[in-house]
Amino acid sequence: MSEPKPPAETSPLKEMLHEVIFEADTTVGRWFDLIVMAAIVASVLAVCLESVRSIREAYGEELHVLEWVITIMFTVEYAVRLFAVRRPWRYVWSFYGVIDLMALLPTYLSLVFAGTQSLLVVRAFRLLRIFRILKLTQYIGEARLLKAALLASSRKITVFLGVVLTCVLIAGAMMYLIEGEENGFTSIPRSIYWAIVTMTTVGYGDIAPHTVLGQFVASIVMILGYGVIAVPTGIVTVAMSDAFKKSTNTQACPACGAGNHADDARFCKYCGDKL
Amino acid sequence: MSEPKPPAETSPLKEMLHEVIFEADTTVGRWFDLIVMAAIVASVLAVCLESVRSIREAYGEELHVLEWVITIMFTVEYAVRLFAVRRPWRYVWSFYGVIDLMALLPTYLSLVFAGTQSLLVVRAFRLLRIFRILKLTQYIGEARLLKAALLASSRKITVFLGVVLTCVLIAGAMMYLIEGEENGFTSIPRSIYWAIVTMTTVGYGDIAPHTVLGQFVASIVMILGYGVIAVPTGIVTVAMSDAFKKSTNTQACPACGAGNHADDARFCKYCGDKL
Amino acid sequence: MSEPKPPAETSPLKEMLHEVIFEADTTVGRWFDLIVMAAIVASVLAVCLESVRSIREAYGEELHVLEWVITIMFTVEYAVRLFAVRRPWRYVWSFYGVIDLMALLPTYLSLVFAGTQSLLVVRAFRLLRIFRILKLTQYIGEARLLKAALLASSRKITVFLGVVLTCVLIAGAMMYLIEGEENGFTSIPRSIYWAIVTMTTVGYGDIAPHTVLGQFVASIVMILGYGVIAVPTGIVTVAMSDAFKKSTNTQACPACGAGNHADDARFCKYCGDKL
Amino acid sequence: MSEPKPPAETSPLKEMLHEVIFEADTTVGRWFDLIVMAAIVASVLAVCLESVRSIREAYGEELHVLEWVITIMFTVEYAVRLFAVRRPWRYVWSFYGVIDLMALLPTYLSLVFAGTQSLLVVRAFRLLRIFRILKLTQYIGEARLLKAALLASSRKITVFLGVVLTCVLIAGAMMYLIEGEENGFTSIPRSIYWAIVTMTTVGYGDIAPHTVLGQFVASIVMILGYGVIAVPTGIVTVAMSDAFKKSTNTQACPACGAGNHADDARFCKYCGDKL
Repeated sequence: MSEPKPPAETSPLKEMLHEVIFEADTTVGRWFDLIVMAAIVASVLAVCLESVRSIREAYGEELHVLEWVITIMFTVEYAVRLFAVRRPWRYVWSFYGVIDLMALLPTYLSLVFAGTQSLLVVRAFRLLRIFRILKLTQYIGEARLLKAALLASSRKITVFLGVVLTCVLIAGAMMYLIEGEENGFTSIPRSIYWAIVTMTTVGYGDIAPHTVLGQFVASIVMILGYGVIAVPTGIVTVAMSDAFKKSTNTQACPACGAGNHADDARFCKYCGDKL
Repeated sequence: MSEPKPPAETSPLKEMLHEVIFEADTTVGRWFDLIVMAAIVASVLAVCLESVRSIREAYGEELHVLEWVITIMFTVEYAVRLFAVRRPWRYVWSFYGVIDLMALLPTYLSLVFAGTQSLLVVRAFRLLRIFRILKLTQYIGEARLLKAALLASSRKITVFLGVVLTCVLIAGAMMYLIEGEENGFTSIPRSIYWAIVTMTTVGYGDIAPHTVLGQFVASIVMILGYGVIAVPTGIVTVAMSDAFKKSTNTQACPACGAGNHADDARFCKYCGDKL
Repeated sequence: MSEPKPPAETSPLKEMLHEVIFEADTTVGRWFDLIVMAAIVASVLAVCLESVRSIREAYGEELHVLEWVITIMFTVEYAVRLFAVRRPWRYVWSFYGVIDLMALLPTYLSLVFAGTQSLLVVRAFRLLRIFRILKLTQYIGEARLLKAALLASSRKITVFLGVVLTCVLIAGAMMYLIEGEENGFTSIPRSIYWAIVTMTTVGYGDIAPHTVLGQFVASIVMILGYGVIAVPTGIVTVAMSDAFKKSTNTQACPACGAGNHADDARFCKYCGDKL
Repeated sequence: MSEPKPPAETSPLKEMLHEVIFEADTTVGRWFDLIVMAAIVASVLAVCLESVRSIREAYGEELHVLEWVITIMFTVEYAVRLFAVRRPWRYVWSFYGVIDLMALLPTYLSLVFAGTQSLLVVRAFRLLRIFRILKLTQYIGEARLLKAALLASSRKITVFLGVVLTCVLIAGAMMYLIEGEENGFTSIPRSIYWAIVTMTTVGYGDIAPHTVLGQFVASIVMILGYGVIAVPTGIVTVAMSDAFKKSTNTQACPACGAGNHADDARFCKYCGDKL
């Protein structure tokens, strides 16, 4: 996979295109972003609406045209990106490069495999392109903090998920034995599905305990699920509180330049100098 | 839209009316507020009860009379407000001015469009008038803090909502493919509706997965929805913690400049100097 | 309501009985508490089991005997309390005095109104007696803190409840108009009931939207209910954090004896003396 | 129950086996752990899949063979552990020793009681063996903190659970009286089951109120359950915040004695002295 085009001196056209496509701080760049975003939303809406039988029958033709207009737009965009970017291969194999390609392929492939429905999922990936717009600077800081807080508590959340899955497995096996096949608990996997539905407090009611003992066990699972939600909430709240606190105090030490001081700090905790 | 009546020197009558209507710190003003509030509650209750067939058939006449009594009360109140206020046009186009007008119009319009049911919604706006009573000073501080905390975390909540909507869209599209029309997932919008019902842990059970793969995906959506609620909770808790902390005390020590004192502090907790 | 028996010099018998009944720090007093508690649990269980038809038919006689044994026990206890307490009238009209009386009356009244079922509720009040056992000192501190935290945030919770009720009222009225009587939304009160079921994420599914617009509004109500739970959680968490923080630092100022200092306080915030 | 083999000087074989089985910090030890873990997951999956009728009919033979392979593996492991450990009796009666034995017995017992299904539950205990892998050092710290936070708030949670159970009992008794047997509330225990389903916001819908008064009481139970979840969340969040804070740093400044320093602090933030 050798890079076919080494980063030569960039032409002015390339530079201009790069600015329009990859940066959001010029007027043209912002308009470009908004148009791409509108096209993404339109195409996602089209996919959704096309799945409704009555709309498909009435406006199938129009949606088909819209589909192709947007696909050609995205194809042009993809080609221009490929041209404007310095290292095309790196872009092609990057996260957004793959998504960009996946936004084009389904429509073209539909010519080959006419009438295939299973490409619908792939089209849904177009929505992932919408996240690009999040590059708007002001949102990045927030998202980064949220992500940092979740990462910081990922081990605790893993332990928590392990506990939940164990509870759900044991509760499912117990209910399979207690309720049995005649009450809808036809297998352990199905009982585990019921336990998840119950413990997460979703409660469809498609499977529900009928015996007294089953209702007793179900009650315990419910109260467990009701109370246990406090654990991840506590974990995430504490992690966020820490992550935000770190980011709020922006005071830097005049002596060593270190930041990240506590709110009530009077001396730099790294060099001991007065703040 | 020139102001027809410039703020002339206010007459004593106007001043008195202004005090009664707009201020809650005189006895008459408080009584006025309580009567308006009772009328609002009565009219909302009347709208609700009138929608019950058996009550409508038995007490339709009485409810109709009550409706007109309250409407005339509100009309008089609106006219007096219009007279007492300094800049009538500003009031007419203000938030509460529009609501006050909307509380009158439906009943009058019902004379024109006799038997129209769709004005019921507009009548529900009368309930918004009930918030006026929140002007009682002690509640304002609390509501303002809540609002400040929500505003401070609005960007984070927007990012969070975007993530939830993306999850729901992808889960909906997947379930449409997996379960198909024969299991109730007749279109992607309907599948998205199911995904929202599931992820928010509401779980009506009107649409529920029947295939093993569908139940597996549903389980993931449930656990996601169950755990993800921790994120907005964490965001709002941290924002409130900050908002309340800030509001509790902004006093700084005159000797050492340290802040973050308790509400009942009389001496600086760091240097012992009088605050 | 003059007090018939003024607090005379207490007899040794009275004093001993007072110690056994009202205090939990002697061996006899603790045994007395445990026996009363067991009788309460037994009587509550008996009420529950008696409502099951098959058990009532098989063990009705035994439950009837148990009922009378416990009632006579409670009658004796009530009489002894009335005798041992200094101001009997004050006890009779106190919270626990009323509950103690309500634990006796239903059984006696059942002789008069034979076969009355509606006294069952009153019997449930016996459960309130179980809280007495919470007088065990170690639990009081915790319950008091919880209560203090809830009281401190009661105004914020009132504002929050007002917002929820307004949302539920407007959503209910909208759904009544959108879905109409043919889809189960037969009246506004019933639609409000649906809105509460949905917004609290309970989701029975006995009433569910069938129109596309109705499902859209329902989705908004769900997401609102899903996210809005963060608000009371934030309020209570912050209030608890404050309530517990205040209680954790038990340091008292050596000069003025005042407590309730911050963790990082070095000088008393009331008198400025070194801690 | 005398110990048959007193801790003699350990043979090199014993020592080597001990290292492989009980320690995860050598390559062989880590591989041993991974293989045991895979066997546990495989056996749990086999138990689940065997309960599905279609799979049992198609692959019953293969699952039976797998069952015996894993059981023999676990038997060998158990025997080796018994040989390698210093105090075999202590291991046999320890928590993990009992679980290890319970992971073997069901399969052997199934030879005696052929076709018994009720041993399935016991097999589920195999899952508890999966927690052993949590011995991996990095996870222990997290789990210990979570456990400490939950233990620290156990009394508050007990008080909270007591309040919830009382609410559920009173609501159940009320609904039994209001709705009665004709609406599915056939007994108080069943009504309590409904109240738990409702208050925990699970909401199956298998039992739902039909009378207006019943729906009103149900609405109150729902709003109560919706809001009350804030209480354990608040409790656990505060407890975790404290537990994590305590664990981060217990260092005190040698000059001024102030604590509460950040993890990366090298100088006291109050007096600027070296920590």
